Amino acid sequence: MLFFTQCFGAVLDLIHLRFQHYKAKRVFSAAGQLVCVVNPTHSLKYAPTRCAAAQTSTEQGALPPCHHHDAVHDPQLVPCTCPLFSCPWEGHLEVVVSHLRQTHRINILQGAEIVFLATDMHLPAPTDWIIMHSCLGHQFLLVLRKQEKYEGHPQFFATMMLIGTPTQADNFTYRLELNRNQRRLKWEATPRSVLECVDSVISDGDCLVLNTSLAQLFSDNGSLAIGIAITTSKVHNAEAEM
Amino acid sequence: MLFFTQCFGAVLDLIHLRFQHYKAKRVFSAAGQLVCVVNPTHSLKYAPTRCAAAQTSTEQGALPPCHHHDAVHDPQLVPCTCPLFSCPWEGHLEVVVSHLRQTHRINILQGAEIVFLATDMHLPAPTDWIIMHSCLGHQFLLVLRKQEKYEGHPQFFATMMLIGTPTQADNFTYRLELNRNQRRLKWEATPRSVLECVDSVISDGDCLVLNTSLAQLFSDNGSLAIGIAITTSKVHNAEAEM
Repeated sequence: MLFFTQCFGAVLDLIHLRFQHYKAKRVFSAAGQLVCVVNPTHSLKYAPTRCAAAQTSTEQGALPPCHHHDAVHDPQLVPCTCPLFSCPWEGHLEVVVSHLRQTHRINILQGAEIVFLATDMHLPAPTDWIIMHSCLGHQFLLVLRKQEKYEGHPQFFATMMLIGTPTQADNFTYRLELNRNQRRLKWEATPRSVLECVDSVISDGDCLVLNTSLAQLFSDNGSLAIGIAITTSKVHNAEAEM
Repeated sequence: MLFFTQCFGAVLDLIHLRFQHYKAKRVFSAAGQLVCVVNPTHSLKYAPTRCAAAQTSTEQGALPPCHHHDAVHDPQLVPCTCPLFSCPWEGHLEVVVSHLRQTHRINILQGAEIVFLATDMHLPAPTDWIIMHSCLGHQFLLVLRKQEKYEGHPQFFATMMLIGTPTQADNFTYRLELNRNQRRLKWEATPRSVLECVDSVISDGDCLVLNTSLAQLFSDNGSLAIGIAITTSKVHNAEAEM
């Protein structure tokens, strides 16, 4: 009996996923872009003191700012950058991606332009939607967070961070784009490094910020599609000059 | 003595205006666009019931939704669309522009692309910054409003409205663009008609919305520069297809 219940659950999940993909393809069929359906994760940690030192000394070789171990450690080691968990892991920057994939099961996508389809936008805050994005020889972490900065008024915050140093991050520009019902909202900025905490980027408000009403205007049946593009900063500067 | 005090005040005003223009030119010198310095106006009316019927019957020929006279009236007459005052004036759509210029002293600017430089962003809510924009044979009303939708959390709302009917408004697309410190935020939408109240557009959140922190990121010394462009919808659709 338990076996049949589980089978039925699995079939329902498959139907749900198929429906989500269909929805995503319908929204972005013309663009021919890779669509990634991202399910929400209820965040297990919101420790405000975790990244107290995030604003200082974030250059290559400096002490990792989000450090949360008291023992003396190798300065080249980076703590886990996953914004979902207070994870005790630390390792070299080069192995952060494999840690995020294996331990936190965060998907990684290839391609210069992808569509991030966040489902179940109605879920209560705090909730995160996370993927990694591999592009131009680097990996980026895209975080969409629903959070109540002011009690009773949830907002959506979206940002992109380079899994690399701040110096490397300065070479890129990321663009987040919402497009629906003859409305378009674009945010372009230089990605931050994962050595700076995502929590501090969001608390500074230096990212794409959406009120609930705007998020609803851009959502389709509870899902929000965000077009993502990454370019090198030289291209961005040339555009600005034009 | 009073004469000398007034003269001194006038000279100070001139120096202040000159400084504002210099600042605006510095921000947008590369673009070669027309810069309009817009000073804030503390709104004298915030009557929430004024536009109770704004969501219905806004098509051409229908009863103007922001009607606030009880007497039977000519259905072709439009009430004053100035969002600043509860003004008893009403007249034909064709004379709304001259009423706004003459009675409410709202400036009008020519050109497809202009820069709206709102000064004194720090002033407490509610505050409005308003200009008219003449372009493509029509006049548009640009409203930037600082308002506390949630007590203690002021936000900035920017929208563009056509001084015309909703059917005419559907032919256009407006773009508002903020650009500073390698960050760019763009909002594109179809303008609403002034027959729909600006208050309802803002309460729906169907406009460019900025938190105080984002507004500060884009501000330069207390002034916010918004690039404005208006196109016909056909151009917009062609861009979307690309």
